[in-house]
Amino acid sequence: MSNWYANGASVAELAVDDRGLQYGDGLFETIAIRKGEPRLWSLHSNRLARGCKALAIKMPSDELLGDGIVHAIAASKLPDTYCTVKIILTAGVSRRGYARAESCTPTILFAAFATTPPPASFYRDGVETRICSTRLAMHSPTAGLKTLNRLEQVLARSELSENNLFEGLTMDADDNLICGTMSNVFFVRKQTISTPPIDSCGVAGVMREHLIASLAIQGQRVSLETMPLADLDTVDEVFLSNSQFGVMPVASCDAMRWGVGAVSREIMATMAKAGIVECQS
Amino acid sequence: MSNWYANGASVAELAVDDRGLQYGDGLFETIAIRKGEPRLWSLHSNRLARGCKALAIKMPSDELLGDGIVHAIAASKLPDTYCTVKIILTAGVSRRGYARAESCTPTILFAAFATTPPPASFYRDGVETRICSTRLAMHSPTAGLKTLNRLEQVLARSELSENNLFEGLTMDADDNLICGTMSNVFFVRKQTISTPPIDSCGVAGVMREHLIASLAIQGQRVSLETMPLADLDTVDEVFLSNSQFGVMPVASCDAMRWGVGAVSREIMATMAKAGIVECQS
Repeated sequence: MSNWYANGASVAELAVDDRGLQYGDGLFETIAIRKGEPRLWSLHSNRLARGCKALAIKMPSDELLGDGIVHAIAASKLPDTYCTVKIILTAGVSRRGYARAESCTPTILFAAFATTPPPASFYRDGVETRICSTRLAMHSPTAGLKTLNRLEQVLARSELSENNLFEGLTMDADDNLICGTMSNVFFVRKQTISTPPIDSCGVAGVMREHLIASLAIQGQRVSLETMPLADLDTVDEVFLSNSQFGVMPVASCDAMRWGVGAVSREIMATMAKAGIVECQS
Repeated sequence: MSNWYANGASVAELAVDDRGLQYGDGLFETIAIRKGEPRLWSLHSNRLARGCKALAIKMPSDELLGDGIVHAIAASKLPDTYCTVKIILTAGVSRRGYARAESCTPTILFAAFATTPPPASFYRDGVETRICSTRLAMHSPTAGLKTLNRLEQVLARSELSENNLFEGLTMDADDNLICGTMSNVFFVRKQTISTPPIDSCGVAGVMREHLIASLAIQGQRVSLETMPLADLDTVDEVFLSNSQFGVMPVASCDAMRWGVGAVSREIMATMAKAGIVECQS
């Protein structure tokens, strides 16, 4: 049975002519529902609004989005204390061709999914990762946005299928690390925390933004810095951020090993205080 | 009423969980049906196979594809003498997340659309174009392929909506011309014909390939050459290629004017002989 809903009604299917399928002409958000609330909602909503502006899709009202989330959870009978809601917003149904019809009405879909937090051992011991050979295209007009054009992530993710790695790190064509397939990445070197800029490729994650803001409140700055692959073995610590799992230390990447450092532990504590329950593990 | 068909049955809708919608995890082909035959079929089929290889989707058999095309035309009651068939092939339905389930079965959909050739005046007088401000991301892992990730073309095309221009030319971030939003582009300078390489971004069109091959038979070479925007006003002629309209001369691009040159006329005559009926206009 489908767990997708549109306008409060269950929908298993979407018109084949929808531009979301035809061209990936749309956006999505995957929201952690915690203690009855959509976590980091304002950040999700802001990114969706930026995407709508870039794609010239009408941004749905906050009320419509809020009602859709509440309804998807209620209809799914999942606990609103811990689950995930995905929103898909497309340009809607249109005639064939890249040009949208004037009359195009956006499609908006909601679904709730059961989810469990990663094991506490992942936060304690860190996770294993690798460098993906799939590269991210540079100077993308939709860099940072969460559009329905996600083939790069699909291809990079497929490189992890034959092993048990938690995540793969992706680079641009210039051998600079950008992000994980489903996460953003941070580096610690001599107490300095950095993360790669997301203005050429990759997705600007809401947890990345929340982490940068939470550290700023404490007077800790995260610098936006390019990280060439060649420099990766000179960093002291590596960690990931993602809307669902919060902040996760990276124990290793291919042959490089870092374990879990003091700064990563401190940051997890900060994030736990900032409401990211997973980081209490 | 939907004109989409799957397994010989009419389908107006697709599972929301299909990866084609969720991530653009799929491919398409838009085929000109002329005189009862899918024109340039082997080139379409080859590009689809290259896409399947890159995306690790099982390539459908030629029989399945052929039957699907024939059925879509018959069911649509459109004339098989002149119409268009679109094939969409996706990775299929899978659990949430970029990783595909092992058991993922590809989705394949067919539809026939009514179409008419462009007016003869377009071929005689050339068409008006502009330079789009939307840039194509560089070093794309899916460069050349016709995937369902087509936001760049959608965004570029939207720049034409307020005027009557036939096509927009797109550049990469280095100000090199790559292709049109729905076509490939060729330049003539001092009798030399060139077209930009499609190994970093853009779509490698089947008509582009057919044109290069048809000219080669005559001993005429098309060179793969980077064309910086700054050099565009030094070329003598510009023309476009596309599977549906064949070869079309470009009369102007923004303030640059070329009219229709002798080489473009010769090439249209060559293509008309090579079976592209539109070029007889």
